[in-house]
Amino acid sequence: MPTHVDIREVCLRDGLQLEDPIPLSAKVALLEAIVATGVREIEATAFVSPSKVPALADAPEFAEALAAFPDVEFSALVASPNGAKRAIASGLRSIEYVVSASDAHSQANVGRSTAEATAAIADVTRVAHDSDAAVEVIIATAWDCPFDGPTAPQRVVDIVTAAIELGVDRIAIADTIGTTTPRRVTSLIEQIRPIVGALPLGAHFHNTRGAGLASAYAAVQAGVTRLDASVGGLGGCPFAPGATGNIATEDLVYLLRDSDIDVDVDLTAAIEAAKVAQQLVGHDLPSALLRAGDRIRN
Amino acid sequence: MPTHVDIREVCLRDGLQLEDPIPLSAKVALLEAIVATGVREIEATAFVSPSKVPALADAPEFAEALAAFPDVEFSALVASPNGAKRAIASGLRSIEYVVSASDAHSQANVGRSTAEATAAIADVTRVAHDSDAAVEVIIATAWDCPFDGPTAPQRVVDIVTAAIELGVDRIAIADTIGTTTPRRVTSLIEQIRPIVGALPLGAHFHNTRGAGLASAYAAVQAGVTRLDASVGGLGGCPFAPGATGNIATEDLVYLLRDSDIDVDVDLTAAIEAAKVAQQLVGHDLPSALLRAGDRIRN
Repeated sequence: MPTHVDIREVCLRDGLQLEDPIPLSAKVALLEAIVATGVREIEATAFVSPSKVPALADAPEFAEALAAFPDVEFSALVASPNGAKRAIASGLRSIEYVVSASDAHSQANVGRSTAEATAAIADVTRVAHDSDAAVEVIIATAWDCPFDGPTAPQRVVDIVTAAIELGVDRIAIADTIGTTTPRRVTSLIEQIRPIVGALPLGAHFHNTRGAGLASAYAAVQAGVTRLDASVGGLGGCPFAPGATGNIATEDLVYLLRDSDIDVDVDLTAAIEAAKVAQQLVGHDLPSALLRAGDRIRN
Repeated sequence: MPTHVDIREVCLRDGLQLEDPIPLSAKVALLEAIVATGVREIEATAFVSPSKVPALADAPEFAEALAAFPDVEFSALVASPNGAKRAIASGLRSIEYVVSASDAHSQANVGRSTAEATAAIADVTRVAHDSDAAVEVIIATAWDCPFDGPTAPQRVVDIVTAAIELGVDRIAIADTIGTTTPRRVTSLIEQIRPIVGALPLGAHFHNTRGAGLASAYAAVQAGVTRLDASVGGLGGCPFAPGATGNIATEDLVYLLRDSDIDVDVDLTAAIEAAKVAQQLVGHDLPSALLRAGDRIRN
């Protein structure tokens, strides 16, 4: 078991992307609350089509606010080499490039097949490395696709293999629709770990079917050292309207800390940031700690 | 790993006990919806002080409705030998006797120390066995107490040892306030399994801090073959008002089924029963599957 796990806070991107747009000043207030948790990595925004994701249409403006926090590694999600160029032009030096492991989701999401999206890793990586930016390939629908059903693990293995050959810096696997469970998490990680080798391996879970934390813990047991989470559990799933979102940062911190796994996030500050997020979006968030608080101790 | 887990449905007792009392006819409607899930064991009610738990004051009357379902094993929770006598007089043949592993919780709950409550296992077992009823000792606050903080594992070991010497039929450990996490679950089970031997070992988790399903899965990995769950995740915690309740039956079934672990509960029927429960209590329930539904499959 790892003794330390890096948490990347994704509330500002994955958390907000399905919400109604909030003002830039409100987003900066949430950023400040998140930075106050001590988290070292924050997914700040996405450089994608503003018409498809209006909540993140302010990416260039929001990126200007990030310079105030030089100790945090900010990343931005992109879906194309052009998105990577825009992110880098806005000052980002950590690029997340998404490849869907299922063709139907890839086509729905970016209008390209998995093979086409995989081939574009080369251009994204070149763009990023030319500007001394790092590239993480995030493999979406790594376990299940809302259209194609279960994803064959070999499809994930093939993307991981290609990404490493093309020189990416990190790999992550994502349970995009929140359907996987611990046994399948363990199984997939066991298949890709030998390929990933010494590169950092991350995982991204949604709590859509309640198994998000169980899957996250299984991932850590299998050797993952990087986990995405969102304060308050903010974030949804376009294929399960109204469902629970990302695993909540504070719930994850509670579980890992209680398992003697060190994290760079203060639990009390994370609950405070969740309160800020809840107030900004104007509806209840699914986080358990937000309701129950930390446990009563002597 | 076990290939089959027995789920005991606790919605009618643990789920309802903190709710405003609902009419007997409504409770019977919920019972019928729960029986329709195919679950083989149902915790029906508790024979405790009606003034302390008004929602279950109808225990004798409700017990009469159980005779219509002879294929289900119904149990009742008791806190004393006298409670066991009342349960048996009402026709119950499966008795759950609770012993709190922490003195402060034991005093608050039943006005006796852990040692006094443990000693009473003898009388409860005699009362039950005289009527061919089975006795399960449920060890409450097995990991944490809301007053005393963390529970020393040796206190749980001592109760298990005493219970087995006194001839009980089953043992269960309960995370009464919903604070434990997988590592501590594994650790405690490893300590008591050698004592429990071939007796059935169960576990009872609340999702109060979001880790309920992760803990349940860890318990199964450690050899537990019996899990309590409540449709809709109904149930609260008196020490964390407004918090999430028991682990939701449908979320547990989803996770176990997806892990190739067989259960006697139909997922669609469990979601339907959760809808019935939600309607009866008149507020949203925390179950994930209730919102998201089963996963999309080919």
